[in-house]
Amino acid sequence: MRHIILPILLLLLSVSASAGRLTDYIDPRIGSEGLGRVFIGPCTPFGMVRPSPDCTPSPNSGWLPMPERVDGFGQVHVSGTGGGPKYGNILIQPFSGALDRTEFFALRESETILPAYYSTTFAGNGIKTEITASDRTSAYRFTYPGDSDKCLKIDAGFFLGESPVPDAREAQQFVGSEIQILSDTEVAGYSRIRGGWNNGRAYTVYFYAKSDVPFAGTATWKGSDIGSATSRFDSGEKTGALVRFPQQTDTVNLRVGISFISPLKAKYNYELESEGKAFDEIREESLAKWEEEMRKIEVHPDTPEREKRMLYTALYHTMLMPSDRTGENPLWTDPVPYYDDFYALWDTYRTSMPLFAIIAPDRLAGMVNSLVNIGKRDGFMPDARSGNANGRTQGGSNADVVIADACVKEIPGVDYKAALQAMIHDATTPPGGNEEAEGRGGLREYLSLGYIPHGIARAGNRTVEYSLCDFAIAQVARKLGKDKIAERYMKQSESWKNLWRDDYEHDGARGFIMPRDAEGNWLDSVPFGHSERQHPTFLYTPLTFEGPWYTPWWDMFFYEASSWEYSLSIPHDVPGLIEKCGGPEAFEKRLDTFFGKDYFNVNNEPSFLSPCLYHWIGRPDRSGETILSIIEKNYSDTPEGLPGNDDSGAMSSWLIFNMAGIYPNAGHDYYLIHTPVLKSTTFRLPDGKAFTITAEGLSDENRHIVGAYLNGKPYPHSTLRHSDLAAGGELRLVMAPAPGAWPSSLQ
Amino acid sequence: MRHIILPILLLLLSVSASAGRLTDYIDPRIGSEGLGRVFIGPCTPFGMVRPSPDCTPSPNSGWLPMPERVDGFGQVHVSGTGGGPKYGNILIQPFSGALDRTEFFALRESETILPAYYSTTFAGNGIKTEITASDRTSAYRFTYPGDSDKCLKIDAGFFLGESPVPDAREAQQFVGSEIQILSDTEVAGYSRIRGGWNNGRAYTVYFYAKSDVPFAGTATWKGSDIGSATSRFDSGEKTGALVRFPQQTDTVNLRVGISFISPLKAKYNYELESEGKAFDEIREESLAKWEEEMRKIEVHPDTPEREKRMLYTALYHTMLMPSDRTGENPLWTDPVPYYDDFYALWDTYRTSMPLFAIIAPDRLAGMVNSLVNIGKRDGFMPDARSGNANGRTQGGSNADVVIADACVKEIPGVDYKAALQAMIHDATTPPGGNEEAEGRGGLREYLSLGYIPHGIARAGNRTVEYSLCDFAIAQVARKLGKDKIAERYMKQSESWKNLWRDDYEHDGARGFIMPRDAEGNWLDSVPFGHSERQHPTFLYTPLTFEGPWYTPWWDMFFYEASSWEYSLSIPHDVPGLIEKCGGPEAFEKRLDTFFGKDYFNVNNEPSFLSPCLYHWIGRPDRSGETILSIIEKNYSDTPEGLPGNDDSGAMSSWLIFNMAGIYPNAGHDYYLIHTPVLKSTTFRLPDGKAFTITAEGLSDENRHIVGAYLNGKPYPHSTLRHSDLAAGGELRLVMAPAPGAWPSSLQ
Repeated sequence: MRHIILPILLLLLSVSASAGRLTDYIDPRIGSEGLGRVFIGPCTPFGMVRPSPDCTPSPNSGWLPMPERVDGFGQVHVSGTGGGPKYGNILIQPFSGALDRTEFFALRESETILPAYYSTTFAGNGIKTEITASDRTSAYRFTYPGDSDKCLKIDAGFFLGESPVPDAREAQQFVGSEIQILSDTEVAGYSRIRGGWNNGRAYTVYFYAKSDVPFAGTATWKGSDIGSATSRFDSGEKTGALVRFPQQTDTVNLRVGISFISPLKAKYNYELESEGKAFDEIREESLAKWEEEMRKIEVHPDTPEREKRMLYTALYHTMLMPSDRTGENPLWTDPVPYYDDFYALWDTYRTSMPLFAIIAPDRLAGMVNSLVNIGKRDGFMPDARSGNANGRTQGGSNADVVIADACVKEIPGVDYKAALQAMIHDATTPPGGNEEAEGRGGLREYLSLGYIPHGIARAGNRTVEYSLCDFAIAQVARKLGKDKIAERYMKQSESWKNLWRDDYEHDGARGFIMPRDAEGNWLDSVPFGHSERQHPTFLYTPLTFEGPWYTPWWDMFFYEASSWEYSLSIPHDVPGLIEKCGGPEAFEKRLDTFFGKDYFNVNNEPSFLSPCLYHWIGRPDRSGETILSIIEKNYSDTPEGLPGNDDSGAMSSWLIFNMAGIYPNAGHDYYLIHTPVLKSTTFRLPDGKAFTITAEGLSDENRHIVGAYLNGKPYPHSTLRHSDLAAGGELRLVMAPAPGAWPSSLQ
Repeated sequence: MRHIILPILLLLLSVSASAGRLTDYIDPRIGSEGLGRVFIGPCTPFGMVRPSPDCTPSPNSGWLPMPERVDGFGQVHVSGTGGGPKYGNILIQPFSGALDRTEFFALRESETILPAYYSTTFAGNGIKTEITASDRTSAYRFTYPGDSDKCLKIDAGFFLGESPVPDAREAQQFVGSEIQILSDTEVAGYSRIRGGWNNGRAYTVYFYAKSDVPFAGTATWKGSDIGSATSRFDSGEKTGALVRFPQQTDTVNLRVGISFISPLKAKYNYELESEGKAFDEIREESLAKWEEEMRKIEVHPDTPEREKRMLYTALYHTMLMPSDRTGENPLWTDPVPYYDDFYALWDTYRTSMPLFAIIAPDRLAGMVNSLVNIGKRDGFMPDARSGNANGRTQGGSNADVVIADACVKEIPGVDYKAALQAMIHDATTPPGGNEEAEGRGGLREYLSLGYIPHGIARAGNRTVEYSLCDFAIAQVARKLGKDKIAERYMKQSESWKNLWRDDYEHDGARGFIMPRDAEGNWLDSVPFGHSERQHPTFLYTPLTFEGPWYTPWWDMFFYEASSWEYSLSIPHDVPGLIEKCGGPEAFEKRLDTFFGKDYFNVNNEPSFLSPCLYHWIGRPDRSGETILSIIEKNYSDTPEGLPGNDDSGAMSSWLIFNMAGIYPNAGHDYYLIHTPVLKSTTFRLPDGKAFTITAEGLSDENRHIVGAYLNGKPYPHSTLRHSDLAAGGELRLVMAPAPGAWPSSLQ
């Protein structure tokens, strides 16, 4: 392993010395403040370990900007998520003082956030903490001021999102923990937690920590008992260790191996990845991995720094999750790769997975096989999964779209037959009592009525999204020559039309996805609650977001969006949608209202494709204009540079495609071509191939495509086939101040 | 803890010295051969650890009679189960030879099987193994012949029911294992296994083993690699340790702490229960626990030894499972007791749980709270559960009957409100895709049609059993004053009538539970399979057991019984059943045919109550006759002394009640009084109370009850109220050669 990595490392270091590293353009702070919630700590691509400061009060990614206090540094985190936090396990905190208490909050004096590197110096005690990480190991370097007590806490009881309310919704719940001081340099143990956003079963994070400075003193605790015992077995209480280093110590290097299997496996992970390596060596290895990923997209040398920072940080964000936990699955053992932290496919199926289809098809094949295998082993494929447990669903059974996208793009290495079986299982088996976790809730009604009636949670977007998932099943079935299945699901993919209320008008638009009851009646008003005698209702409009005060957000008609948004969210049948909307003219007017009046919601996924809808009425120029304007207004290279939860890189991958000037319609084998932000973008493909998109003459004035050339030949379509992209070559776009004759057709 | 146990122990030892111990009547071999499948090893009541020889080829309880070979001694087992095996983890095998291989099969030269004690001497190497156990610890004493190599294998990869076929139905599947030689006397590790009969999720059995003789040499293995490494981390392969003791060693005492939480918890269990204790002390403590349980039933001093052996061994069998795993639950932590290995309630709700209602109400309350809590945490209450995972269902959602039985008998300490909630959840929430594991499969059809149509697995007995479970819900609702719910479920408890085919005649009986399709048509013949053109069928009669060759046993119309049996299995509405059968005369004739022609199946639970059905036509004498004849023909104090799988003590508890002369109808607050086998039986109740059933003048000739006296007063009914029993007192039965005027009524 080292034989292979070291030469690459040296190569990259020399590259770095001469031309600068692409990782220099990664700024983990982008999207870390405001709504982005990205993970800011050091890590590797799709790595299992993601150390970060954990700040009060329990943010999703652990970190909060100064001056929030730091509780310590946890080893496992997610990135960009909404809802209740997950993970934040095995908290490490340097401190100065006696080994007689268990909480050592600190304020930061300064902080440095870089790819594969984090450091902070605490105010007061002046202790400096530096962190880097390999795939399954965190590496810490603590520098203690000369005259202080030099101590460290390792807390096996800590986790994010703790609530004083037992079984509080979306809160993580403590199950157990264990701590063991193995020698004067080694501590091991685990933390067992359940719940969190996905209300998952118990998961266990095991650790093995080794210091390069022997402990001069130790203590351990369980609950409120602190003492000299060297081990604390798991009796369902919080445990941890306190260690003191000799007074003359300046610097302590601590390595923390993590595992979801056992402490010995955690030790093995430490031995494999960080034993005998200097802090900087581990950091350079991590950077080399990132550099390799970054090189999958190249841009024009003249690209402004700001755009490079936006692009490469977005690429970095896209590769934080899911977590590759192959060999770390405590539920079953088999040769199939195992990924966890699909969090959530509802977010990532649209642009993240399609991005992997281009630059990381092997990785994508592993993820798809993992999804199908989870379906086989656990009952249902995940729509989201974290801590080795499925949950939650938001709308569709979106693994379907991921599979279909891989299938139509002919990503090799996937067992599509098994995948189709799993898709059909999930599309025909109601998840009894467990509808929040997996499968298709409201499935029986969807199948018998053709839509989900109001009263079932998320009836509106479930109907819309199941339609897309049915289309996805049809694509895979067709590809496998199963025409009867394909026909059945193509027919079923029209189900969204059953909630389309043709004559409903709102703000100049006609026809909306609206609530309907099980008897087929359209509901202008929906129940606000009921008692034996009272049946209050409230008016439901295409802009309604709110519900009755006692209704969980989760149970509304649409999930996280309005009817204006979902009524434009039919990616698998845009021509059908245009017809329903009254034809191209009415559709264009509707889109103008949508974007003009901000009914479009930039900070969430349901509207991801909407700016490109102009393509279907022959106006890719307007798609391009809209996208450029969205990016300009909402994305930047600042800490507030993402307009919504990054959702495991979903927002970021949306940005990458749109900066490059092509946008995928997941489950379809084409990309919508529009005005790029970047002058040129090259996607590095497998087998040494590459595909470049060049925008000739692009400038603030020349923002319109007037001609396109695929590998030198005039290209009249406003969509690019994946097969053309995957073959390698160049799409040259000729830019001008106003739209021209291009394109002559969509495809 | 020791302070409390030791005086009891001394007391019992003194009792033992004078009057003999009741545990002397326990013969774990009863029911160990033939169909019984009882666990024969040492253990404590409801203990977590049950060590036993594990023999090839993988029997359910581990043990097989000589001359089958012994693979070693596993630490966790179940008792009396059918289907695929579960557990058999952490295999320990003494051997003589080099530490260079991993399998050491042995034949037995001799064997001793006693409560809390097992020993065998191996043929060939002459090594003697003695075993005893505490709740969570196995204790081994190995005696090695003078001139041999003295070695031991600890195998973390072994489990029962391994199949070469991946994912074979009902086979356990390997997930991972780990081994660590901690010192020259300590070995720890774990075994992680999934599957088995209930197709459960992965469970992990951790162990900590300590020897009183230091190892002179050690080796470990992983997969096929054997070497000197002292630890083998879990990489999804089988691991184990081999140790050699010094040549001069005679005897090795090995203690094995077990935990489902962690190796440190296993060590703690060792420290708590067996550290510093001699082998015989551990055995005596275990015996003392059993003695305390045995003393809950007392019999007349003149009782023949054979009957005492049958009775006390049956009582022992009833208390082997479920396993009390309070504090050993890796899934969640809360103050509610945690029981695992309900295996299955379908078996034990009928007589085992009702027995606990009399002699161990505290224990029963803990079990019921555990069931309700599992429902709250895991989604559904178990019908069966093992390895911390629900599964499988056979017919009803039988936790309902357990709860109702406790509720109508006013067992204190149960949260009946939470219980009713859980019952209603399980009765209204279809278990999507997971119907084999939990909940009510076919629920939608049951609710919409009033029965489960043919074609859904186990349609017949599910309909019958859901009716009983609905009755159970009604009982609890009534008790809690929820009359509307009670009414609804009482009505629904008549659902069995919807599968009652009134005009169907068979062997002189009229009216049977028969297959019906979803359109309401009765099926004389049922499908044998189908293709596009062929639709073969086969004749379905009330005696049909078999199905088409390709149909799993599991998918038949009735589970493990015929229509003749299930058509008499309506315990909650025997008067309604008699009416359906054409009145008392027809019913008596039907019962006579049933028993006369052996349509009655003594070896399974669905017919448990059937012998007592004569009570409802005023003929308790015929119930008594039938029961005595069943016991005489099928039960004995020999290894073949149980006529079917003991099913976690179900057969045994049936025997206890019927030997005493009262039989419970689970979910009802009464017992059916009939001719006992025992001259007198005293149930020891809480608070020092006792209830005695005396059969005055009972002999081979005087086998009929002609008069009854409750606490001295004439008692005219053939049923005894639980409240009367629980108050303490005496039921005196006067026996004569022929039936007399008693009773004047059922209740």
